[in-house]
Amino acid sequence: MPPTDPYAAQRQRLQALLDAMPPVAALGLAVDGLDDRCLRLVAPLSRNVNDKGCAFGGSLASALTLAAWGALETALHHVGEDVDIYVADSRLEYLAPLYGDLLVEAAMPDAEAVAALCGKLAARGRGGLVMAAEARDAAGRVVTRLEGRYAAVRRG
Amino acid sequence: MPPTDPYAAQRQRLQALLDAMPPVAALGLAVDGLDDRCLRLVAPLSRNVNDKGCAFGGSLASALTLAAWGALETALHHVGEDVDIYVADSRLEYLAPLYGDLLVEAAMPDAEAVAALCGKLAARGRGGLVMAAEARDAAGRVVTRLEGRYAAVRRG
Repeated sequence: MPPTDPYAAQRQRLQALLDAMPPVAALGLAVDGLDDRCLRLVAPLSRNVNDKGCAFGGSLASALTLAAWGALETALHHVGEDVDIYVADSRLEYLAPLYGDLLVEAAMPDAEAVAALCGKLAARGRGGLVMAAEARDAAGRVVTRLEGRYAAVRRG
Repeated sequence: MPPTDPYAAQRQRLQALLDAMPPVAALGLAVDGLDDRCLRLVAPLSRNVNDKGCAFGGSLASALTLAAWGALETALHHVGEDVDIYVADSRLEYLAPLYGDLLVEAAMPDAEAVAALCGKLAARGRGGLVMAAEARDAAGRVVTRLEGRYAAVRRG
């Protein structure tokens, strides 16, 4: 038997979460990769183009906000937490226009940060974490960068 | 004859610019007000809702980025500048979840700032300006805030 990919179910789950949000479905975002290191999302330029023929800043903001959110959401789900995750603030840098499909990546939070956050969730039902995400062009150059604080709140 | 509204044509022009961008059309954004003081955009929650039943952070980021962009675009068009305007960076604060339609406003840049920017455009074909925008709930409370730098570049 081939080895089981523990992230296949997580990829499907995250794609379903994205598709259930109308403004996200409109961007055509797809989960292109998800493992213990990072989450990668892609979206076609044609659905995210602005008046200048390059990627709309709001689409990049959405894709980056979702990549960081999705990485944290997946990491917390992976350790059994049932939480709502909200973006609290973000800082975006648009370094160069992007004349191609959107390729965005967010690193998964490291195990220590997740453990510390779980401690806060156990103690008072909520906690926060700073996350980051980047968009690159087809040549691998970073074109847009996000850093943001996310708040996790236990459900129920 | 009734007095002519000098901003009616600008409202139509801006709405056409928004509708021509697929990811913006998807949000259902409408120009709800535009005069010499501010630009107001609205969008229905139903097209911008997230997994928690409130407004998606990326939709708020898009609407706020566009409101500030549209205010600057309109002000420069009003004084005869033919420019492309890019967002260079932004800072977003999500102060409270929004369980209603998106109502966003950006103040028009003041005349002195526009005159200084026109001086830069004349001297070297490009210049920048810091703009701000806010989203409010139906009770008038600010729920999300953006501050961003925009770059204007002369066309042709």
